[in-house]
Amino acid sequence: MTAPRFHVVGRDGAARTGRLELAHGTVQTPAFMPVATYGAVRGVSADDLRGLGAEMLLANTFHLHERPGEELIASLGGLHGFTGWSGPWLTDSGGFQITSLADRVRLDDDGVTFASPVDGRSRRLTPESTVEIQAALGSDIAMVLDECRPVAPEEAQDAAQQAAVAAAVERSLRWAERARRAHDKPEQALFGIVQGGVDLDLRRHSARATAEIGFDGHAHGGLGLGEAPERRLEAIEAAHEVLPSEAPRYLMGIGRPEDVVQAIGHGVDLFDCVVPTRHGRHGVLYTSSGIVMIKNARFASDPDPIDVDCDCPTCTHHSRAYLRHLYRSGESLGARLGSLHNLRFYLRLMARAREAIACGSFHALGAQVVAAGGVRVE
Amino acid sequence: MTAPRFHVVGRDGAARTGRLELAHGTVQTPAFMPVATYGAVRGVSADDLRGLGAEMLLANTFHLHERPGEELIASLGGLHGFTGWSGPWLTDSGGFQITSLADRVRLDDDGVTFASPVDGRSRRLTPESTVEIQAALGSDIAMVLDECRPVAPEEAQDAAQQAAVAAAVERSLRWAERARRAHDKPEQALFGIVQGGVDLDLRRHSARATAEIGFDGHAHGGLGLGEAPERRLEAIEAAHEVLPSEAPRYLMGIGRPEDVVQAIGHGVDLFDCVVPTRHGRHGVLYTSSGIVMIKNARFASDPDPIDVDCDCPTCTHHSRAYLRHLYRSGESLGARLGSLHNLRFYLRLMARAREAIACGSFHALGAQVVAAGGVRVE
Repeated sequence: MTAPRFHVVGRDGAARTGRLELAHGTVQTPAFMPVATYGAVRGVSADDLRGLGAEMLLANTFHLHERPGEELIASLGGLHGFTGWSGPWLTDSGGFQITSLADRVRLDDDGVTFASPVDGRSRRLTPESTVEIQAALGSDIAMVLDECRPVAPEEAQDAAQQAAVAAAVERSLRWAERARRAHDKPEQALFGIVQGGVDLDLRRHSARATAEIGFDGHAHGGLGLGEAPERRLEAIEAAHEVLPSEAPRYLMGIGRPEDVVQAIGHGVDLFDCVVPTRHGRHGVLYTSSGIVMIKNARFASDPDPIDVDCDCPTCTHHSRAYLRHLYRSGESLGARLGSLHNLRFYLRLMARAREAIACGSFHALGAQVVAAGGVRVE
Repeated sequence: MTAPRFHVVGRDGAARTGRLELAHGTVQTPAFMPVATYGAVRGVSADDLRGLGAEMLLANTFHLHERPGEELIASLGGLHGFTGWSGPWLTDSGGFQITSLADRVRLDDDGVTFASPVDGRSRRLTPESTVEIQAALGSDIAMVLDECRPVAPEEAQDAAQQAAVAAAVERSLRWAERARRAHDKPEQALFGIVQGGVDLDLRRHSARATAEIGFDGHAHGGLGLGEAPERRLEAIEAAHEVLPSEAPRYLMGIGRPEDVVQAIGHGVDLFDCVVPTRHGRHGVLYTSSGIVMIKNARFASDPDPIDVDCDCPTCTHHSRAYLRHLYRSGESLGARLGSLHNLRFYLRLMARAREAIACGSFHALGAQVVAAGGVRVE
């Protein structure tokens, strides 16, 4: 197994395309990672994901630690052996659960204690233990534990909130140093996480200090939690001013196609988001000209595929009319076919972005995707 | 399109293997039809079914009449165009819903009125209208409307119950004649349905009178509703004594692998059942040596596939440990992978039965499947 390496192979403005060499394979960037919280993408198998063109998946350390536990996964060959997805894996750190499970969390300087959503019992994560768990899971990229503290837009000017965000940045930096020291697996990349809400000075400070610790890549954390897209892009921009450009940059948990494309335009390399599968389950389907709300009556007798330009299994074999019928009849096949389509849409979007960057035509692609954002296909 | 034809190509005792030539393809018998009530097998696509080796699917006339309606399906190319399954389809008649929706049904000599489970409105089926609906659906095999009247074992000796069963046989025969007269689609096969509970004289009478009307094939109806397997086999046997052996024989809605194999041993050619998908969704998985209850703790760290001899996508890529984890985590992928495996188990069982009949070794296969019936793999 080789140590992780990243090569930027093309640039178009701030956008870049590259090759991320990891222990279990090479990922072409910009890349989108389907979300496999418990080691499985909702309703979609490893084999399906290979067919859709996925190159790396994301799994969730906290949830896998709870069930089935990292020892079991390690004994079955790590995430790669356990799940049947033998390509690269990224594991998050559990830091996001400090936000998403906020009412079940007790934070202190040493780490975080959760009341388990599974059995109510107390679970403890520290910067060191999340590194150990991710080592046992065997992911190709591990993330440091961070204190993800979201700032609601209306609170951003509140002095107490700002102080809390600043304190979270400092705690995350202390935790990042501890994680870096605890990490002892040269074939596994370790990424630091920039925090600081949408305060640009805090973002720059967090990015600079994180980079100084020395990581294989850097993530933007604590975004996509209510801030305006423009503020988010400014926060990304501020961090990129000080992050080393030769390391990969990862925007965690975001977002819609237009969010992804705009972030690529600002030089982000890696993405994950539940949007394609969550929207797929609910019949919100992406096309290059906008969103198809497939349950609408207007699609009842529509013989066309979701997107005539799409090569996914759903568009190859099935009409909008059939899909609408499946969703309305409560047939679980609808959720699956919608998820397959949306995942393929995202993965093709990344392929198109890589090609556009290589050809110097990224701006036109970005403008087209942003223009289609939020449009309902009529 | 050719008119339906059936050729018996091999026999082993009463068991037989054959070729059923239908408008949309040839089906090798004995054949198992996955159940696609609303035109979709639960969580499994047409493309998946082709990969699993299915040759014919079953859809439900009553439910499709309710939603999305046969006019819509006809306008999109019938079941074949609408669903993406371009191979043979069999449609049931709605007769089974007289039993399954019994508390929403009003029967008279002319037909049956249902209170719709979808919108509560009244829906009327007659022998003629079910033929028309199935013509619009464009299935390869249509079934006549019958009065399916189950007999609980403890009621079988009750004189009033016996009289009711006898009356249902006579009504079904009158309806079968009307359906035969109404059917005007030479490329679509029309099958009659034998009723009579487990009363052997009634079964023989129903079979003889049904055969005299003249159908392309014959089904055993009203079984699998509580009677002992031995009584069921006697009822099948009694009908086969008088049914023309050159026409295909279909056992509706049954059953477990051991039920299917025993019925093949009595000369049945066609089967459908929800067992493989329903059990697949609940983690009850078939193997040649018995049933794996995959949620059991004993499979928590089992690295083997469900069945080492199975070539399905699930067994090719995933361990019992991973499957157990999926079911226990509520991941819908578990239901899908379990359904794929069970469907492949049934379809391979049919292929093995055809081969065994051709080789004269069916008895040994039957004994093995019956011996594995109900065994829990430990």
